[in-house]
Amino acid sequence: MAVLGIDIGGTKTIVAVGDGNGRIIAQRRITMPGDRAPAAVLFMVEFALNALMEQNGITLRDVEGIGIGCGGPIDRDRGVILTAPNLPGWDNLPLSEHFRKAFNAPVCLDNDVTLAALGEAREGAGRGVDYLAYFNIGTGIGGGIVIDGKVYRGCGNAGEFGHQVILPDGPMCLCGKRGCLESVASGTSIARRARKLVTICPYSLILGHAGDVESISAAHVAEAARQEDQLAMNIMAETGGYLGLGVANVVNILNPRKVVMGGGVITGAGDLLLDMIGETVRERAMTQLADDVEIIPAALGDQAGIIGAIHLALGVSGRC
Amino acid sequence: MAVLGIDIGGTKTIVAVGDGNGRIIAQRRITMPGDRAPAAVLFMVEFALNALMEQNGITLRDVEGIGIGCGGPIDRDRGVILTAPNLPGWDNLPLSEHFRKAFNAPVCLDNDVTLAALGEAREGAGRGVDYLAYFNIGTGIGGGIVIDGKVYRGCGNAGEFGHQVILPDGPMCLCGKRGCLESVASGTSIARRARKLVTICPYSLILGHAGDVESISAAHVAEAARQEDQLAMNIMAETGGYLGLGVANVVNILNPRKVVMGGGVITGAGDLLLDMIGETVRERAMTQLADDVEIIPAALGDQAGIIGAIHLALGVSGRC
Repeated sequence: MAVLGIDIGGTKTIVAVGDGNGRIIAQRRITMPGDRAPAAVLFMVEFALNALMEQNGITLRDVEGIGIGCGGPIDRDRGVILTAPNLPGWDNLPLSEHFRKAFNAPVCLDNDVTLAALGEAREGAGRGVDYLAYFNIGTGIGGGIVIDGKVYRGCGNAGEFGHQVILPDGPMCLCGKRGCLESVASGTSIARRARKLVTICPYSLILGHAGDVESISAAHVAEAARQEDQLAMNIMAETGGYLGLGVANVVNILNPRKVVMGGGVITGAGDLLLDMIGETVRERAMTQLADDVEIIPAALGDQAGIIGAIHLALGVSGRC
Repeated sequence: MAVLGIDIGGTKTIVAVGDGNGRIIAQRRITMPGDRAPAAVLFMVEFALNALMEQNGITLRDVEGIGIGCGGPIDRDRGVILTAPNLPGWDNLPLSEHFRKAFNAPVCLDNDVTLAALGEAREGAGRGVDYLAYFNIGTGIGGGIVIDGKVYRGCGNAGEFGHQVILPDGPMCLCGKRGCLESVASGTSIARRARKLVTICPYSLILGHAGDVESISAAHVAEAARQEDQLAMNIMAETGGYLGLGVANVVNILNPRKVVMGGGVITGAGDLLLDMIGETVRERAMTQLADDVEIIPAALGDQAGIIGAIHLALGVSGRC
């Protein structure tokens, strides 16, 4: 038997073929076209999966399940994305149905961060942990809850850690609300604050790394912070503080054993953020609950989502 | 068979005898002595339970389990309260051991609000609900999470909804941290804000109801708000807004089907708060998750905790 996994992201999509134990046999990375037009992306995904199958002697008959991850709130029952801020034009696209027909196998669609949480819980930093919360800090901020190795979904979309209100009068968020954790601590927010502040403080090394104001990204801020650029260090400390507040709230609500911190911002700047996050949690969460929790970086990098998608596919196939 | 329930509160303690179906046969309310001295309270509880048992023809041999609820983070394994702000002198008291010896039956200790959540889930407003969050707004603010009729505890103390940070620079909270929901929206906080504001605005009806500034309670504020006293209405609206932020965060994290609002402040002033809470959740939580949830008042009043304690006792006895 075989299963297929698809991890759809704003800048890249990973597709993979897995075996009956959830191990990835082969995978391919697809750079998303600039307009992220759904028809083109679906064609590329299908083409890549067919190529991987052919290269590994897997036929349509072997495929017993397909797991798909993508951003934004989704309707799992219908297998459609409801609102995906990073994928314009994808709302209500019949994703599951498309791949069910293409590969003649049952499909399950889930939130990409939920699948990264599942990946980390099954094969990464959260292996064997009973109560796990996973934060994904990237362009946006998402989360996932895994209890005893199974995803907790609530009514279907639980774990939106990035949209808890951290600053009631804070900036507008892409979700349409105000002061969400995402609006003050995502990679996008780090870059936005840096762009604003370098115009006041143009001597910052941030500008040198980026070349011009518009090109500043979270990575440039991290680079400058590592060179002890004061402005960059302040931005990263502020970000760590906000993230710490968000983690503290999740700790107070879920009382998890471990909180796994993943996503591009942690991969690129975890060394600058994790101490501040831990410190803030100890300062802000209830003492007993702060003592219960260990806050650790993710172990699987950008493989977490596709590993989770493969495990989701196993679940659909009835083998997991 | 019979089970015993004990719901220990800051101002009163309820004890009850229940049957094998979790129905309460008889109960008694004990007013807590001023100093809440543990030895005196334990004696009164034991005395009252023995009296109830005798009146209902229940002997020590019939008792198969005891459920105890009390405030503050607890150590369930050891059966002790770790830190109870409302019960000075009770830290590390061997509560479970005391009642195990007194009634020769297995004992389980749990957070009082967790048990109120369990009570509402099993016999109250949350009956039959798969994903339930319960808020208790009283002197303090607590919470409970019930998934498919079972309490979700995480490492033991999950559901501390009152200690999520709502205003990062807000007032100090009894828990020792700053800006917790409890510090800005509990009954204590309503009274504290009113005491401060009536000195600026002494024409408010609040002062008339209370007699003097020091006597002002949340109930006086609610009474004045119902008479359209502007200051009182503002305090209640502000409180509803803060509570709405707290509920919105829980909605974003847990994606519950229902949120049940209980506790003394809701019993006394739910009519003044629930609309504002609902409005704030719609404004602040992610749209899809806000659409999934229904926010409703608790149904069991101050009976929720003791009903939960009886259900906990059934669990200990192995019958539940």
